[in-house]
Amino acid sequence: MCRWMGYRGEPIVPRTLLYEPERSLIAQSVRHGPDLLEPNGDGTGLGWYSRRETPAIFHSDSPAWGDENFRELADEIYSPMFLAHVRAGTGTPVQKTNCHPFRYQKWLFVHNGYIDSFDLLRRDLLMAVRPDLFSNIKGSTDSEVMFHLALTFGLADGETLFAARYASGPVVNTLYMSESVDAIRMLYPEHERLRRIPADARAVLSEPLSELPGVWREIPPSTALVVTDTPHQRPFRPQPPG
Amino acid sequence: MCRWMGYRGEPIVPRTLLYEPERSLIAQSVRHGPDLLEPNGDGTGLGWYSRRETPAIFHSDSPAWGDENFRELADEIYSPMFLAHVRAGTGTPVQKTNCHPFRYQKWLFVHNGYIDSFDLLRRDLLMAVRPDLFSNIKGSTDSEVMFHLALTFGLADGETLFAARYASGPVVNTLYMSESVDAIRMLYPEHERLRRIPADARAVLSEPLSELPGVWREIPPSTALVVTDTPHQRPFRPQPPG
Amino acid sequence: MCRWMGYRGEPIVPRTLLYEPERSLIAQSVRHGPDLLEPNGDGTGLGWYSRRETPAIFHSDSPAWGDENFRELADEIYSPMFLAHVRAGTGTPVQKTNCHPFRYQKWLFVHNGYIDSFDLLRRDLLMAVRPDLFSNIKGSTDSEVMFHLALTFGLADGETLFAARYASGPVVNTLYMSESVDAIRMLYPEHERLRRIPADARAVLSEPLSELPGVWREIPPSTALVVTDTPHQRPFRPQPPG
Amino acid sequence: MCRWMGYRGEPIVPRTLLYEPERSLIAQSVRHGPDLLEPNGDGTGLGWYSRRETPAIFHSDSPAWGDENFRELADEIYSPMFLAHVRAGTGTPVQKTNCHPFRYQKWLFVHNGYIDSFDLLRRDLLMAVRPDLFSNIKGSTDSEVMFHLALTFGLADGETLFAARYASGPVVNTLYMSESVDAIRMLYPEHERLRRIPADARAVLSEPLSELPGVWREIPPSTALVVTDTPHQRPFRPQPPG
Repeated sequence: MCRWMGYRGEPIVPRTLLYEPERSLIAQSVRHGPDLLEPNGDGTGLGWYSRRETPAIFHSDSPAWGDENFRELADEIYSPMFLAHVRAGTGTPVQKTNCHPFRYQKWLFVHNGYIDSFDLLRRDLLMAVRPDLFSNIKGSTDSEVMFHLALTFGLADGETLFAARYASGPVVNTLYMSESVDAIRMLYPEHERLRRIPADARAVLSEPLSELPGVWREIPPSTALVVTDTPHQRPFRPQPPG
Repeated sequence: MCRWMGYRGEPIVPRTLLYEPERSLIAQSVRHGPDLLEPNGDGTGLGWYSRRETPAIFHSDSPAWGDENFRELADEIYSPMFLAHVRAGTGTPVQKTNCHPFRYQKWLFVHNGYIDSFDLLRRDLLMAVRPDLFSNIKGSTDSEVMFHLALTFGLADGETLFAARYASGPVVNTLYMSESVDAIRMLYPEHERLRRIPADARAVLSEPLSELPGVWREIPPSTALVVTDTPHQRPFRPQPPG
Repeated sequence: MCRWMGYRGEPIVPRTLLYEPERSLIAQSVRHGPDLLEPNGDGTGLGWYSRRETPAIFHSDSPAWGDENFRELADEIYSPMFLAHVRAGTGTPVQKTNCHPFRYQKWLFVHNGYIDSFDLLRRDLLMAVRPDLFSNIKGSTDSEVMFHLALTFGLADGETLFAARYASGPVVNTLYMSESVDAIRMLYPEHERLRRIPADARAVLSEPLSELPGVWREIPPSTALVVTDTPHQRPFRPQPPG
Repeated sequence: MCRWMGYRGEPIVPRTLLYEPERSLIAQSVRHGPDLLEPNGDGTGLGWYSRRETPAIFHSDSPAWGDENFRELADEIYSPMFLAHVRAGTGTPVQKTNCHPFRYQKWLFVHNGYIDSFDLLRRDLLMAVRPDLFSNIKGSTDSEVMFHLALTFGLADGETLFAARYASGPVVNTLYMSESVDAIRMLYPEHERLRRIPADARAVLSEPLSELPGVWREIPPSTALVVTDTPHQRPFRPQPPG
């Protein structure tokens, strides 16, 4: 099971969210609770929007926790929107082209979950990708194919942070969004790091970065999240193509 | 342009051919003549037959010349048939799954050359691979697809070393085979390394390991080589499938 | 905390011990019990004695669990004595030169534990290494310096498997040795894998490969283990040099 | 022989100098003239000053020409001072901690050249490093030790770009500085890329990025270069410490 987080708001240094919280994404990747039995050590990635319309990407095929380049960039970058991912592979090779985020033009995509029996379905799913998108597939993961299928079936504008919590099977990986910074500050007026978080900041992520009550809103299954200045939810029910 | 070599004969330590000759495969990968302008630094691989029917494989995404694991294995292995490859990529990523040799059951495959406009043809060529072979494709190179197309259209038994020199365009990469060890020893009775080469040894490779006249036989274009105890050549003329 | 295992006995394929047991070294490196909170994902290594007097070494700076080269070698090698190690770094970089086993001539060395405040002591400890051994230090770990200090102060012959359980502080990492294969077979006459283990085999390791009672003997703290055909223990009490 | 370049001037995107010129640093690393027989494929690095007083660093143990992270950063960064390096190792391992630039506080350091018999001298040279700097040495190269010896014997302020051309032996690697952009534009008023180079820009580097006459000034041996708004040269004659 992979883990990831996305940020949207006034520019910040990603370190603030990726390294500093006690249960930061990097801490989650290495340290486990009793119910989290496997590390996220099969590569990592960071995609960020900054000077250019096209986002920049860093990929590493090493565990995030020991990657000095990742740490440097998380300290150096200053960005209003970024996505970070720590991978736990499900059978496909550990290599940079299998690391999230995946990119197409203005789009970045991360995923935690898997396509059951992907080994058997891979050929058919690849064939369903729009032919002009095919050469943008560089790796061999199910997630990258899903991204290109989503592009094939039409994605929106590439300026908003979207997230969806959905599974066709009984286990539905979690999805959380941070509450508004105003609301959180009212709960924790003394909290040091919160003072450095911009007022319009929103984090969307697979698991909370802290155990503070009132900070993290769990998004229900079969729900999509549209993170703008005024985030809202929608039902998420995949339709068969046709 | 990649480079490679294959060995068939009584077991030897690969170092004898991969590192010791002045123009060994490893030396070729780093040092260039005036007409060889690019290094073979985009990964390397070694496949060898030994205790088991299935060959073993080592792949590295680093240049061969500085890879300590490659050097250790070349010194430790003792094998009657092995294939080594040093890669110069032609646009596909530098990663282990793009390194030769590729393997399927008893088969090993190496290649130097390329499919022109592979980016455009990749989808169609992948679709032409026999569906049950599809999940054995782990990387993104033209060479790996060619191997699986060859498997699709029927390859022989997997006990002989085959080589083919062929190009549809005007430049045809070279192919050489060593002459019989008896013949070479008669030419160079004092040569030290030759004494350690088994009497039935044959090397097949993209470029000679030395400039000694009489040691390396150039195979003509559009020719296939079948290396058994008594190697022979055949015309090689691809036919359109169907 | 690193983990490791050593084997001594009639030649076996390392996969038998490294991959097959439910709590194999590779399984230990990725999957954790409630009390084992960190993965061993900061590189891995395998050293084995085979055709030559000098052992061969494979090092990887990736986690063992996803390393295809490691898996290939564990299947291909056939050796009467080998050492495997999975690393959890304690501050020094993740790189091949920091991976165990370390080698000097006939010697191989693995370690789990650390030198407290190594950052402060490193210069003094390096200076205490015999000058002619200095250039054999390739990495930056405390373990490699310990090995060279041991060589400096005199190690035995390099033909026996030695292990020591010792700590100057209150936490003493565990050390186990497998009981004699005869004794184990009497306890578990139906056990499949045991039939493939040679009669004289002994495994020495940081943590048991199974929960079977009667298979693993815990070695007490401050004890050295000398693994020959008739293994024995000795008190282990470091003396100040001089 | 390594290759490197440094930039000082109004902020630019490093790609402009690292990738675009026909003989860019990346092109130099892979493609060779008849007199340049070895690639610079043993790792690469980029250090840049930007938002913070401390420079940021990216290191890769892969060849620069195939490194996608390097290419991304060269496109994304926007910096008034950066140093890039492509390595050709001289015996020390290929690993990130052996990649230039090296960093200490505000300082960055790159080097092309070597210390003869470093294997024999390494211990003594390490001992001559100021003890409080010792723990900043992460790798095993002669260049990193030289940097820490320079720090030991006193370096200036860390706000200027310094370069020195010097060798104690007969071969003295080259050093060049670009002429003033005004002067170059007068020579090549139609040149496209030059219009994007800031008026105050200076590049300092081991070998020219083009064959355009009048663009690159060769710095004589035993000379130090101080690159400020008004660059100047000084004699460079090392003194024995004491």
